[in-house]
Parts: sequence; structure tokens; C-alpha cells
Amino acid sequence: MKYIDLNADLGEGFGDYQIGNDAALMPRITSANVACGFHAGDAVIMANTVALAKQHGVELGAHVGFPDLLGFGRRRMQIEPQVMAHYVTYQLGALSAFAAAASYPLSHMSFHGALGNMVSEDEALAQVLLLAVKTFDPNMIISTLSGNAVERVARQLDLPVICTFLADRAYESNGQLASRVKAGAVIHDTEQVRARVRQFLSEGTVQAIDGSILAVEASSILVHGDTAEAIAMVDILHEIISELGLSLLPPSSQLRQHSWDRTLL
Amino acid sequence: MKYIDLNADLGEGFGDYQIGNDAALMPRITSANVACGFHAGDAVIMANTVALAKQHGVELGAHVGFPDLLGFGRRRMQIEPQVMAHYVTYQLGALSAFAAAASYPLSHMSFHGALGNMVSEDEALAQVLLLAVKTFDPNMIISTLSGNAVERVARQLDLPVICTFLADRAYESNGQLASRVKAGAVIHDTEQVRARVRQFLSEGTVQAIDGSILAVEASSILVHGDTAEAIAMVDILHEIISELGLSLLPPSSQLRQHSWDRTLL
Amino acid sequence: MKYIDLNADLGEGFGDYQIGNDAALMPRITSANVACGFHAGDAVIMANTVALAKQHGVELGAHVGFPDLLGFGRRRMQIEPQVMAHYVTYQLGALSAFAAAASYPLSHMSFHGALGNMVSEDEALAQVLLLAVKTFDPNMIISTLSGNAVERVARQLDLPVICTFLADRAYESNGQLASRVKAGAVIHDTEQVRARVRQFLSEGTVQAIDGSILAVEASSILVHGDTAEAIAMVDILHEIISELGLSLLPPSSQLRQHSWDRTLL
Amino acid sequence: MKYIDLNADLGEGFGDYQIGNDAALMPRITSANVACGFHAGDAVIMANTVALAKQHGVELGAHVGFPDLLGFGRRRMQIEPQVMAHYVTYQLGALSAFAAAASYPLSHMSFHGALGNMVSEDEALAQVLLLAVKTFDPNMIISTLSGNAVERVARQLDLPVICTFLADRAYESNGQLASRVKAGAVIHDTEQVRARVRQFLSEGTVQAIDGSILAVEASSILVHGDTAEAIAMVDILHEIISELGLSLLPPSSQLRQHSWDRTLL
Repeated sequence: MKYIDLNADLGEGFGDYQIGNDAALMPRITSANVACGFHAGDAVIMANTVALAKQHGVELGAHVGFPDLLGFGRRRMQIEPQVMAHYVTYQLGALSAFAAAASYPLSHMSFHGALGNMVSEDEALAQVLLLAVKTFDPNMIISTLSGNAVERVARQLDLPVICTFLADRAYESNGQLASRVKAGAVIHDTEQVRARVRQFLSEGTVQAIDGSILAVEASSILVHGDTAEAIAMVDILHEIISELGLSLLPPSSQLRQHSWDRTLL
Repeated sequence: MKYIDLNADLGEGFGDYQIGNDAALMPRITSANVACGFHAGDAVIMANTVALAKQHGVELGAHVGFPDLLGFGRRRMQIEPQVMAHYVTYQLGALSAFAAAASYPLSHMSFHGALGNMVSEDEALAQVLLLAVKTFDPNMIISTLSGNAVERVARQLDLPVICTFLADRAYESNGQLASRVKAGAVIHDTEQVRARVRQFLSEGTVQAIDGSILAVEASSILVHGDTAEAIAMVDILHEIISELGLSLLPPSSQLRQHSWDRTLL
Repeated sequence: MKYIDLNADLGEGFGDYQIGNDAALMPRITSANVACGFHAGDAVIMANTVALAKQHGVELGAHVGFPDLLGFGRRRMQIEPQVMAHYVTYQLGALSAFAAAASYPLSHMSFHGALGNMVSEDEALAQVLLLAVKTFDPNMIISTLSGNAVERVARQLDLPVICTFLADRAYESNGQLASRVKAGAVIHDTEQVRARVRQFLSEGTVQAIDGSILAVEASSILVHGDTAEAIAMVDILHEIISELGLSLLPPSSQLRQHSWDRTLL
Repeated sequence: MKYIDLNADLGEGFGDYQIGNDAALMPRITSANVACGFHAGDAVIMANTVALAKQHGVELGAHVGFPDLLGFGRRRMQIEPQVMAHYVTYQLGALSAFAAAASYPLSHMSFHGALGNMVSEDEALAQVLLLAVKTFDPNMIISTLSGNAVERVARQLDLPVICTFLADRAYESNGQLASRVKAGAVIHDTEQVRARVRQFLSEGTVQAIDGSILAVEASSILVHGDTAEAIAMVDILHEIISELGLSLLPPSSQLRQHSWDRTLL
């Protein structure tokens, strides 16, 4: 691994409500996943977040979720796949309008919260939703955890894919995230997070919740920015990346680089 | 006048709720104004309405309104112009995603309900909102009543414009619509509507609510489809158009024709 | 069985949207289940529905659902029971305010749609939600299908219960409703509905979808009013009830009668 | 003046979103104005806020606003008075359910944001809305600024009234609040706020924005709790109240005291 993307979920406020510290986080990341008005976000916040991303040269992604502002998109909803596919198209379109208005490209998308969990487990759902993404834009990069239904289906559909590593979430031995309700699922100790990131970046592995060592195929790290500590944590990531001699590279540049590497073979 | 557009407001349901009779109306019109999820409409309805428009070769427009589903966008809201501009962008983007997914162009937009009333009276508001439209797509056709702030500002901004005639709404002597709360503002008598359409199409005039005769600059007629009578009314319009030897022509074709006519001068 | 209640789901519009024919249905029923603004309904509709119920002496109930207007409360949501309990309290309170304003009592409640399905299967959920109901009003009558978790838990909690029969829905052999997605789950043939009602009212049984004969413990029938046919169907129910010499009796009167009967033993 | 109420607007979050510091503010006040789910607040937050109020013996009020979460109820909406009256009833009912569930009384109500501004200027609107309040509960205390339409109409309707003083907002010479958009309308300097409170409590006057001295009829002070400074400010209020030998007394106790005082005359 020679390069890495740092991505974060941004624009998660609504109206007068704010979550996170987008202004502090944006200069520290290379790609942003922006809420689109369903589980969070609104038109004003989207416009401002796109402007901030453009200002810092951060790649823009759509963070697509359930129509459940009250539950922040974290509650599973049994929505028919084709109906949810239309919700995906709607959200992609809404964000892409702000991208178009700012003359700044929308490069990737990912699924938020409970929708993300459901679609990562369910190939039939992934098929319908990713087909909607491809119909909207066949060059849209899909950001996901590696080894799940989203990655598999995205590759089948020939959609570009970038996989991300969650430094502060425990993994099951099958490579998927441990459920938030499980003890130890969220890692709060920064030293432990630092060690995990170092291991991931240098060896490409992570220790699962059962102690086993997993290979992690990922060229991006998801960072959080809700607290002052979180910003300090991101700065630590930058130190590790620098120490290990890695370059920061956002998703679309990685994929161009990747195509270039293959050309050289 | 040699050609005329028939336009209607469609896709105004929400979830399980339906309003109007889109299936009956769509084959009878040449352009459709589709609700975008704020005052009415949702992702599924938008997808279905775009598909129906494409099936019948009806030109697609965005019907943009206030974020007030509960009031169907018919209640004035004091929203800062720049904030409302972002709501406009959001709605345009959402509908354009369904247009893109269907490989069918989004050709025009208009303002719905109370927003339509406010922006037609207020050049400063029209300036901010139409600039947002132009930033999103400089070729977007603006559909409006003639002689109001929207038409004036759209022409200043070099946006293409199509003006529409409301056959069943009374006009004030200044050319604007009489308020719905005024007696006689909505004309229910079909014979009267028929006579008004004939006068408009043959003479380009309408009798205002005070009895004065107004010139009406319009090359489109707004039709309604909420009732069985309304569908019959639309069929009568077709008869009149045919009798008068006019052609049906949707907005973008009219504007191409118009450019062509000017080239010949 | 000497008496029967006819109940219906009413007030299911939202803003300008209407569903059903409340004005035609209300004079034909003895209790109404009124949507409370989550899956359907709004403050104006609730006020009007309460007034209509009072006018016709129809007992008033709260029809409580998921916060999912877009899905009409028909999509399962994984909401924590204690959170959902607060949503129940909120809805009961909102409707009870209109009841209080009209000096007309709120007598019963039932669960709508997907929430109704989930709570009828899950005693732990039923426990939390019905405890919220009891805390709000220990005399609130719980309207449900017989034999499910709601009935069992309501009786454990000493809440008054009325069980209802769905004349146009197929039953599984375990006494629960066949899922709507199953073929034959909704019975459209009015003659078949008529026969089922007659059998239920005269013998207290219904033929399940697998052909077996089930005892149905119910003293109420749920009627629908969405179509002209539905109103005719309700009139047929009145004929059958009259033929069989039964009396119409709303829930709270039934429960008083029941207490009286027990006193005589 | 021998006693004073300290009131604050609480429970203004929504879902995962938080505003203010309710936990720090509640022990420092004597009455709370709780958002009811329209401009802010949801069922869970309402339940928690009622529990917190009960724990600290703080009197409970409903803070009623426009159905505009996106605008936090701060944007004027042209809603028909009778329609808005039903929205008021709905909100009162929702909060009163949590009060009932907690066996803790709902004692007062006030209008939030843009609705508050509109109703304070418009006696016809105040008449319709306060009649809805009185119909719901004739003993509901109305909390408002003195001298406006709300106070006048509430007294005409024989509703109990408590008037509140806004220590950090500039007054016009007519006794109403200066608009937020006016320079100096919000007073950020704590020393200035301290001086204003001392003047109000000792002399019953305030200096208006034009320099004139106004009499202020109020027995309550509205405090804010959004920042750490705000909490310190509330502590300063307590010091001043103590220095001046005043007692803290919530609205309903004040009104009982007032009745008692009149009895002694």
C-alpha cells in the first residue's frame, strides 16, 4: 500500500441543528460523505458542505440513507428494494445538483447506518440499489467495507469500488463490523485506535473481536469528527501516514492510479 | 399564434396518497410540471411520472415549492431568498436524477403555489431563485405567467421563457391572477372556460375580472386533471386547437421554432 | 353473541390528501379508529373526525402507528420498544386533546399496520407499549385480534380488551391474519365476505386459508370504507346483524354489559 | 415585586440532535417551556424533559410553534387561524400526555418563534389560538410579554397570565421586542444583562433601544442555556434575586399568591 484516502461523514446537521465539526475536519481529509436530506442534512447544509469540500479539494460523495430523520437513519426499515432504489436516486440527484452548481464533481457514494448494514448483508438488495446508482452514473465510485454484498455486487456491475477501514470499530472474524450493541464494538481508547491504524497501514491486517487476525483490503480510513478528541485522533492518523511514507490520495485518483499501474504490467 | 403547449401539474401525490388523474392527463398534454418532494411528490411518484412523460413524449418540468407538505405548498413562508434558492436547487437536482436515469431531458421549471405567488410579485426574490436555476442549468426554460417578476427577471438573466395562460382562473386588470380567496377567482363553468380559451387562442386576449380586455402573451395553456370533468375539458381544448388550425408544440420545440423564425428575419 | 361493534379506520388523510369516505362510513359504524399524525392524519383531520364521531355517537379510538407517513405505517421499523412507547404516548395525547376539546371521550386504541403486525407477534414489545397505554389511561380499551400477544399482554395488565374480526382478510390456522403478500390474503368477493360474516356472527367461526375451521373470539367487525362497494358492503353487514337479531353495541358499552353479566352470575 | 419566576425554553432537540444544556439549566429555573414536536422536540425528548422537570420541581409548560422543524419555527407561515388553532391543540395534547404519564401537571403554555411574533401583533389570531387553549384547559396559564395582543386577549378570555421579561433582548419604546435583524436587538454583554436585570427587579423598568425608560409588568425572567456563559449568567441572576431579597416562585404559585393577596384586600 503506497497511498491512502481519509474519508469522513459530514453535513449531518439539519436546519439549526449541528452535529460534528465539519470546518475542522474538512481540511484533514481527502474525501467526504455528505448526507442528502433523508437521514440527515438539508439543502443549505449540502450547499455549504459542497463549498467547503471544493475549497479544500476534498472529493465529494453522497451518503445515502433511510427516510428517517427522527432515527438518524440508524433504524432498519423494511422498504421494498425498488422503492428504496428510487430514494437512492433522489438523494444522488439532490446532492449532484449542488455539485453541478459549484462546478465540482460528485465522485463516490456510500450507504449510511441501518441501510448500510442491510445492504452489506443482502445481495438482492445491493443489486437493486447499485443498479440505480449505475443507471444514474456508471462512473460513480462505491465506497464500502471489503468482502460484503455491496463490494461483490458493485464489482459484478463493473462499478468502481473503494474499500474503507474503520479504525475505531471492532471486526467480526468474517470481516464485517461487530454490531454496535455488542460490548467492545466501538473502540474509544485512542492508543488502541492508533495501534490498529498502524497495523492496518503497515501489514494490511486487523485483529478481530475474537482475537483472530484478518486481512483487510482497504485503501481508505473512515474518521470521525464529533469531538475535540476526534480531531486530535485524525492528526495522529496523519502522523502515522507520514511516518510510514504513505501518500494521501482520494478515491478517484486512486482508481486512476490503479488503472495506470495495471497498464504498466 | 400558430402553435400552443398544453401543460399540467402532475405527480402531486405522496406515498399512498393520490391527487389527480395523471394516467388520463398525460396523453392529452405536451408538457408536465412534476412535484419534487417538497410541497408534494416523492421519489417513487417522480420516477413513475418521468416514465409516463417519456412514454407519451411529454416534456418534463420541475414544479418547485415550499417545504410544506402539510399545506401543499399553498401557505406563504418567510424563508430567506438564499435559503429558498438552495431548496430550489435541491428539488431540481432530485427530479433531474430521475430524468437522467430515464435518459429523458428535464426541459423546464415553474414555481408552485404560494412560492409562485410570492416570486411573481418580488423581483429581488425572483433574482435569487432564478440565478440558482441558471447556475444549475442555463438552458432551463422558465414557465410562468407573462408580465410578472419571474418573466422579467428570467429575460434579464437570458433564461429561456415560456408563458402560460390559465383558462379557469380570473385575471386582474394588471394581468396577474385574482387571488383564490376572491369571489369568481376560479371559473367552474366549462362553457365560460371554453369561450375564454377560444378568445385567448384566436385573439390573444382575456376579459379581466373588472371587465377590461387584456392582451395575454402566452403560448401555453395550463390544464387541470383532478376530476372527470377536467379530462373532458382538456378534450374540448384539443377540439378548439384543432378547429383553429393550431399545432400542439411543447416548450423546447417552441423555443427552437422561435429561434428559427428569428433567423429568417 | 348478542351484540356486535362495527369499527373502521378513519381520518387517514393528510393535509390536502384524502383517503376513504369518512362521511359515508361514520353513520354506519359504532366505533372509529382515528389516525394520530404519525402514519397518517393531521391536527385538522383529527379535529374534524372527532367532531364527526361525536355527531354520530361513534366511540372514539386512537389508531397508533409508526412515524412513517411516506410508507403509511406499513413498513416495519426496528425502533427500540421504549422509544416506540413514547411515540404511542405522544399519539394518544394528541388525539385525546381533540377529544377533550370536544368534550367527547377517547375510549379505545389499536395498533396500525406494520406496528400492529410486530406487536401482535412480540410479547416483549406488547408489554412495553401497553404499559405506556395503561400509564396514560388505565381504562383505555385495547382493540386487537384475539389470541395474539396484544390480547394476552393486555389481559395480564388488566386493561380492558375488545377483539375484532376482519371479514375480508384470510386467517392462518393459528388464528392470525395471512400476510398481505400471500395470494388470497385479501378477500375481494363480496359474497364470500357476506358468507364469512354470517358464519362468524352465527357460529363464531371462520374458515382459515388452509381450510380448517377456527373459533374466533370477537365482538367487533372491522369494516373498510375506501370504495363505493365498501359502503354497500357495510350496509350488507347491517342486514345480516339485523337478520340474526343482534344489537349494535360499541366497545365501552360492551364492557359495561359484560361486567353487568358477570355481576349476575 | 417580592417573587420572581425563572423560565427557559427546553427540550429543543430532535432525534439525535441536541440544542442547549437542559441538564444544567433545569436545576436553576422554576418553570420550563417544552417544545412539542412541531418546531423542535420529539416524543422521547418530551418524556425525558418532563421527567427532569418533575425531578427538580420545575413547572411544566408547552412551547407551541409552527410545523417547521427545518426552520426551527422561526419563519412566518401564513396559516389560517383555525388551522393553526388545531396545531396548538395537538401540541398541547401531546405534551399533556407525558405530563399525565408522569403524574405531573402541565401548568402553562407560550408561543414560540415566528408564531409568537405573529400572535403578539394580531388580536384576531390571538383570539382564535387562545380560545383553543381555553377549550383544552381553562386553567392553562398563558406566558407572554406584557402589553401585547396575547396578554390582552388572554385577560379578555379570563385565562390566567404570567408576563416574562427578556433580559438579553432590546425593547422598542412600545414595549415589544426589537426585531432580531435590528442591530443591538440581542444583548451579548453579560454586565449589561446584569444591570438590566437589576433595574428590572428593583425598579420594574427597562431602558428601550431609543433610550426611553419603560415600565415592565413582569414576574418572570426568560433565561437561555445554550452556552457555558449562559449558565454562568443564570447563576448571576440567582445572586441578584438573593441580594434583592426576592423569592423564586413558579407561575402557578404566583397566581395562587396573587389570588390570596387580593383576598386580603
